Amino acid sequence: MTSSAYQELARHWTRLHRFGHLYSMAGWDRAAMMPAKGSEARAQALAEMDSLLHSLRTEPRLADVLARAGQESLDEAARSNLREIRRDWTSSNALPPALVEAQSLATSRCEHAWQTQRPAENWSGFVGNFREVLRLAREEAKCLAEASGLAPYDALLDKFEPGTTSSEVDRVFGELQTWLPGLVRAVRDKQSRETVIEPQGPFPKTAQRALSLDVMTLLGFDFEAGRLDESAHPFSGGVPEDTRLTTRYRDDDFVRSLMGTIHETGHGRYEQNLPRELLGQPVARARSAAIHESQSLSFEMQLARSASFVGLIAPLLVKHFGAQPAFEPGNLLRLLTRVAPGLIRVEADELTYPAHVILRYGIEKRLIEGEIEADDIPALWDEGMASLLGIDTRGNFSNGCMQDVHWGAGLFGYFPCYSLGAMYAAQWFAAIRRGTPDLDDRVARGDLAPVFDWLRANIWQQASRWTTAELAVRASGETLNPAHFRRHLESRYLGQASR
Amino acid sequence: MTSSAYQELARHWTRLHRFGHLYSMAGWDRAAMMPAKGSEARAQALAEMDSLLHSLRTEPRLADVLARAGQESLDEAARSNLREIRRDWTSSNALPPALVEAQSLATSRCEHAWQTQRPAENWSGFVGNFREVLRLAREEAKCLAEASGLAPYDALLDKFEPGTTSSEVDRVFGELQTWLPGLVRAVRDKQSRETVIEPQGPFPKTAQRALSLDVMTLLGFDFEAGRLDESAHPFSGGVPEDTRLTTRYRDDDFVRSLMGTIHETGHGRYEQNLPRELLGQPVARARSAAIHESQSLSFEMQLARSASFVGLIAPLLVKHFGAQPAFEPGNLLRLLTRVAPGLIRVEADELTYPAHVILRYGIEKRLIEGEIEADDIPALWDEGMASLLGIDTRGNFSNGCMQDVHWGAGLFGYFPCYSLGAMYAAQWFAAIRRGTPDLDDRVARGDLAPVFDWLRANIWQQASRWTTAELAVRASGETLNPAHFRRHLESRYLGQASR
Repeated sequence: MTSSAYQELARHWTRLHRFGHLYSMAGWDRAAMMPAKGSEARAQALAEMDSLLHSLRTEPRLADVLARAGQESLDEAARSNLREIRRDWTSSNALPPALVEAQSLATSRCEHAWQTQRPAENWSGFVGNFREVLRLAREEAKCLAEASGLAPYDALLDKFEPGTTSSEVDRVFGELQTWLPGLVRAVRDKQSRETVIEPQGPFPKTAQRALSLDVMTLLGFDFEAGRLDESAHPFSGGVPEDTRLTTRYRDDDFVRSLMGTIHETGHGRYEQNLPRELLGQPVARARSAAIHESQSLSFEMQLARSASFVGLIAPLLVKHFGAQPAFEPGNLLRLLTRVAPGLIRVEADELTYPAHVILRYGIEKRLIEGEIEADDIPALWDEGMASLLGIDTRGNFSNGCMQDVHWGAGLFGYFPCYSLGAMYAAQWFAAIRRGTPDLDDRVARGDLAPVFDWLRANIWQQASRWTTAELAVRASGETLNPAHFRRHLESRYLGQASR
Repeated sequence: MTSSAYQELARHWTRLHRFGHLYSMAGWDRAAMMPAKGSEARAQALAEMDSLLHSLRTEPRLADVLARAGQESLDEAARSNLREIRRDWTSSNALPPALVEAQSLATSRCEHAWQTQRPAENWSGFVGNFREVLRLAREEAKCLAEASGLAPYDALLDKFEPGTTSSEVDRVFGELQTWLPGLVRAVRDKQSRETVIEPQGPFPKTAQRALSLDVMTLLGFDFEAGRLDESAHPFSGGVPEDTRLTTRYRDDDFVRSLMGTIHETGHGRYEQNLPRELLGQPVARARSAAIHESQSLSFEMQLARSASFVGLIAPLLVKHFGAQPAFEPGNLLRLLTRVAPGLIRVEADELTYPAHVILRYGIEKRLIEGEIEADDIPALWDEGMASLLGIDTRGNFSNGCMQDVHWGAGLFGYFPCYSLGAMYAAQWFAAIRRGTPDLDDRVARGDLAPVFDWLRANIWQQASRWTTAELAVRASGETLNPAHFRRHLESRYLGQASR
């Protein structure tokens, strides 16, 4: 039973959803379509919308409507929706409008300038904008911390992964660190005795794009409800009704773009398959950043780097690039599961990826807590990359600390979600395998339905009905358990089980 | 001297400009980028924004602020701005919010469905949506008429061409009709003795696009502040800071797309060269629809179909399509100035174009005045095309009465502006020639500065400082004078003068 105060809130959040649609599309356009001189006007337009959305979320009358709705007799979906609405309302009311507007302007400028500063290795230009972004993020963290009682960094983390604190992240990442470096060494030792034939380029952009579209089709992406375009930093944007994915192409390498596209397709299918009944309401939104990443990584890591899926990709490579020895499925699998410390997070293999996250997590936590300043980043980056991955990044900004858009865009607290997502993905696939013991055979025959059906029923259609912990228990019988990730990696990379 | 109430209005209209930016980009995206299933959500989002913009323009406090601003001592630019703000405010206050929202929804749906209904020749599907669009347009006309004291159709015309009424349009079009049919006959008779070599296709889309970009560059389009994409119906959209043009390509014909692109480039340069000082204020907007069309037609008709400009295009055709006899400049000029009644307005030559406008003007005026209904359109279309151009359109919807997006998008009162624009363009070029007697020689040498400089100083940078009539007098010494159009056509097509 829904009733009057709740319905008033639902109408209000539908309005927010519609304005959010315009905001989201303008954000996609800025990254994928907008010419350089449009930047200032776009930043102003987005800031104006940020300010409107904030004022709508903080209308004084809402406190009373929320209190009344809390007294109403509501069905379960409405109760969940009210919980999410209250979360939205509480965090918005913690932030002064002037801060919201200043953040929008500063991050728009910083992010747009980064697009040209990164290839130009222009750290000093970037840090000039970024100091202000950081100052405002600290202020935001302080405001959110006061409203929630959390520590400042935890208050930012809570935006993306509600219910998770940095002590939990420290525990999980700490545990990873006890076995992962040893596993990386063992795998690298094993792989050093394998031969991998490198693909021979060039791989023309048009062929890569056609390949991407084929693979997205295989993965069930609905092109009548979304697009694939290009941007400096690949992302999944748009709205559930119209999901905009981006990738980037390099003539000399198709693997990065292909795997990036598969990653974004995982995000995209989650959005495209959110429940339609309550679309526009917070309860119908994707659950959290880690759960979102668990979808992209289910596609990119669990599925796309398995022997059975590689057998599906191989003929598509021949179709678009012509035959060559590297496209033999066994070789292709070795190529896609090769473990090697590298500079770039988004191109990292499954085993070294967590090190990239741990580096960023450590730096951003200290940035927000005021222990270090923006200008300290390059030195800490060099130090972290050397100790975690044995890589020298000194003087390399574009493929070092300027490689990600996140910090410039004001996103602090997001990075841990990538590795939490990788662990959730392993947990989901363990559950899928329990229900479908012949999964690999079915995938090898091109039957991806067991994966899609499980994800649709257990994740996509659940949206934000449950907390992340409840969602995990309902889907897989337990809360986050990193043991699945370890078993998956040992099985795949050391062959200690049958796949 | 600006002062407090005026400054309050200016801030308010800056806010409207920023929200309008998001609206405009979402509109461009809908036509150029959006997949089919995004339609409903986009329509809702745009309707929500329409409703917000309307409520901002009709905030009750504004009546008092406007009254106070009217008492303030303002400089000339501010006075002009206040005049335009008041115009905006008056017309907005004439419309009930429910009507504005209903119009946005109905036109979004109708326009989007039209994109697939048109190629499918699905008139009955289209008219099902269009009846509601028409009903709402009549209601809008009635509201605007009550507020302005104009007749209903004139009230719609006034939105696009302030200060011009249908009796003025009747007079000008009536005068055209006294000499144009005879001129068309004389020109067709003369041209029947000329030989024109047809270009031999196919003309691949990628080559056409590259040609378009070259010609846009020649015409001074700033690609750092705009783009060229594709849509079913070419248009110029976006914002002055980031102008989005669209075109469409056909493999068997490059002329239509090329001339369409040149047309939109005229619109685009006007937007890109509006004055920057007061950007975001109504006084810095393009003057009117007819003045806008005078820019696109200055480019497409006055400039691009002149012998001197054709000499610049010819080598670009050879560059992109390879050499062929049709690309000889003399032949190309004959091809581009060929007069032949045809089905499609946007592809019509200079001499038969007005007949397309006169047909639409007559129908839309009667539609708004309630003399005819939506279902009467096909029969009236067939009748008009037969009598005005001697063409049989029976049963042909896609290239008949469904060819234009205007009516489905709720645009009534716009069509006359195309032919008013053609006459203004002839008037501007007469003025340019007075100041630069060797214009043709300079254009032939690739020096387009005399054209751009005159348009920039007299039209682009003037924006909405003056009424249309004042603008015309300041630019060319007189208000709209169709004699320039007649002289231009006689000179170009019968060679009665030196070009």
